[in-house]
Amino acid sequence: MFKVLKKDKATKARLGRLYTDHGEINTPCFMPVGTQATVKTLSSEDIKECGAEIVLCNAYHLYLRPGTEVIKKLGGLQKFMSWHGPILTDSGGYQVFSLAELKKVTDEGVEFKSHLDGSRHMLTPENVIRIEGDLGADIIMPLDECLHFPCERDYAEISLKRTNEWARRSKDALLKNQTKTNCKQLLFGIVQGASYLDLREQAARELIDIGFDGYAVGGLIVGESWELTHEILEHTLQFLPEDKPRYFMGLGSPLDIVRAVKGGVDMFDCVMPTRYGRNGTAFTSIGRVVVRNGAYTLDEKPLDENCGCMVCKNYSRAYLRHLFNTSELLGHRLVSYHNTYFYQHLIGQLRQAIKSDELDAFAKEFQKSYRDNNR
Amino acid sequence: MFKVLKKDKATKARLGRLYTDHGEINTPCFMPVGTQATVKTLSSEDIKECGAEIVLCNAYHLYLRPGTEVIKKLGGLQKFMSWHGPILTDSGGYQVFSLAELKKVTDEGVEFKSHLDGSRHMLTPENVIRIEGDLGADIIMPLDECLHFPCERDYAEISLKRTNEWARRSKDALLKNQTKTNCKQLLFGIVQGASYLDLREQAARELIDIGFDGYAVGGLIVGESWELTHEILEHTLQFLPEDKPRYFMGLGSPLDIVRAVKGGVDMFDCVMPTRYGRNGTAFTSIGRVVVRNGAYTLDEKPLDENCGCMVCKNYSRAYLRHLFNTSELLGHRLVSYHNTYFYQHLIGQLRQAIKSDELDAFAKEFQKSYRDNNR
Repeated sequence: MFKVLKKDKATKARLGRLYTDHGEINTPCFMPVGTQATVKTLSSEDIKECGAEIVLCNAYHLYLRPGTEVIKKLGGLQKFMSWHGPILTDSGGYQVFSLAELKKVTDEGVEFKSHLDGSRHMLTPENVIRIEGDLGADIIMPLDECLHFPCERDYAEISLKRTNEWARRSKDALLKNQTKTNCKQLLFGIVQGASYLDLREQAARELIDIGFDGYAVGGLIVGESWELTHEILEHTLQFLPEDKPRYFMGLGSPLDIVRAVKGGVDMFDCVMPTRYGRNGTAFTSIGRVVVRNGAYTLDEKPLDENCGCMVCKNYSRAYLRHLFNTSELLGHRLVSYHNTYFYQHLIGQLRQAIKSDELDAFAKEFQKSYRDNNR
Repeated sequence: MFKVLKKDKATKARLGRLYTDHGEINTPCFMPVGTQATVKTLSSEDIKECGAEIVLCNAYHLYLRPGTEVIKKLGGLQKFMSWHGPILTDSGGYQVFSLAELKKVTDEGVEFKSHLDGSRHMLTPENVIRIEGDLGADIIMPLDECLHFPCERDYAEISLKRTNEWARRSKDALLKNQTKTNCKQLLFGIVQGASYLDLREQAARELIDIGFDGYAVGGLIVGESWELTHEILEHTLQFLPEDKPRYFMGLGSPLDIVRAVKGGVDMFDCVMPTRYGRNGTAFTSIGRVVVRNGAYTLDEKPLDENCGCMVCKNYSRAYLRHLFNTSELLGHRLVSYHNTYFYQHLIGQLRQAIKSDELDAFAKEFQKSYRDNNR
């Protein structure tokens, strides 16, 4: 199901391959985020062209719209969105806690009112597994409780106990449900534990005892400093098994991804490429480019002179600036496309660097040339 | 510059070919509208894939943003928008009269305040030719005065005199300007005359005396009935020379285009494919489909079962409905793409039908199967 093909000599990075019913995924990998069964502004053909091998969708959003039954009847998520490769579905635990109203968390699950129409719903570990089974994703995430930063120690302990119990119930539910789905589904455990290093260790050990197909680090990038994010991540990674994929949920900026790959992370997802794309900010080999900037009015150069994507081959900064200045939707799409390609290209370069034992040198070079004003 | 390759036996339709510095255009042709140097939501690659051979841009909009000088310095419109085929620019006369504020029309030209920032501008026949020269379009339209319906006879006469005088000045200006542009530009005359058949005839005869590379019928679809539109069009067409292309500005619905082709029109443009696309209305071989409709919730069929476009090959009505219901921009693009393809496919079918002397039968069949609830 997962093979480590090579370990980097100088860092903890690994080159791997993950096998699913809908195809193989080379790791480290970056998953474009298609929350509502669409990577915003991009078609499935675009995502494939950009080099992505797996996309992420969100069970909470799809459960509410168009509804799990609809997607099930239409033959599952792959067919629905015309993406014929692997899909990972996030349970939507994070969305319940961040978007829904009047949440009530009990040991049974989370009761909430839909952020769309106020209708009442209940998510439990068991029905989330059923929802994700109906959606038919290749990799599924269990329901967990997401905490904000900072979080009191007492509550973090109570919550962790609940999240890990939910993880156990999720695995039981999957074992019962597996025969009913179209494809073999891989279930990952999510390591929580807030910002307490010992709770992170405890979380990891308990999940490993239950046994999952992969392990995710969750509950980070919720308000803590970037140094603390990486400290908790790196602390947690040491307890995760070598022979299973490791997924850092919600990361991140190019510099953060490079650092986390060096720490041994195999899988990433983040809305940044498309969210920034829609705002007119491009990721390039030398840092961010805000295309609306007046300096680009007459700039014939592509977004990134080192990029081989469809947008950089065909369109100038001056044209992209014009599209954003005139509120033309094509601008959103072209910069989202470039950013998605940039992330896939970067993660491909990281894989290549691990293969040729040059990751440390590549990372240093990248950190030198990539200026990130926001960090 | 223009060749009539074949005349239909049963109707006034013609098969033709128009030659420009940026390529040939098979007529009858439909020009997707790229007002601001972008066919809304579609890339230049998309437009080409859909089969378009020429696109239309708008001089008024581009003069205001990003500015004529900017596009000139960037090497012209083709390079700016990465569309390497022929381009026609509308002068923007229509936009001045419909969008701008505080218009003042004199024999010299039109003074107006920009609809964007209230800045004062003046368009004259001469500076419009200069603007269109700087933009570098292959086919350019002169400044004209657009009248509303109904229009008093007295004013229609005064206005026509002015419009035709502007046409003469435009031709003079082009002859002086031609050496300065990158490509040979074809100038069309625009037949005005409001809803007065005799004024339409007069307009056509005077323009022919001046001599243009093609003739457009303008000032229609401004509030009159569809029957009157076609009556005025068909009346006007009889005065236009056989050996020059005839362009009906701003038309139209699929049924209107079929009828106008039978009447002898060679060129069309209309915002309908992309405007309706962004609203979630698709043109199909059996009529319009409103994709948001609840009836499509579980509909696995493509928008049009007789369509071979990228969207119909890959995406279901159910998925497109979901995209519109969740306000996902991909929906705008996919339906705009399908509609643009549909129009190109239809015009291609009309060309084929003329070629094989089956236009009348094709038109009858199309009128029978295409239901248009809005007509």
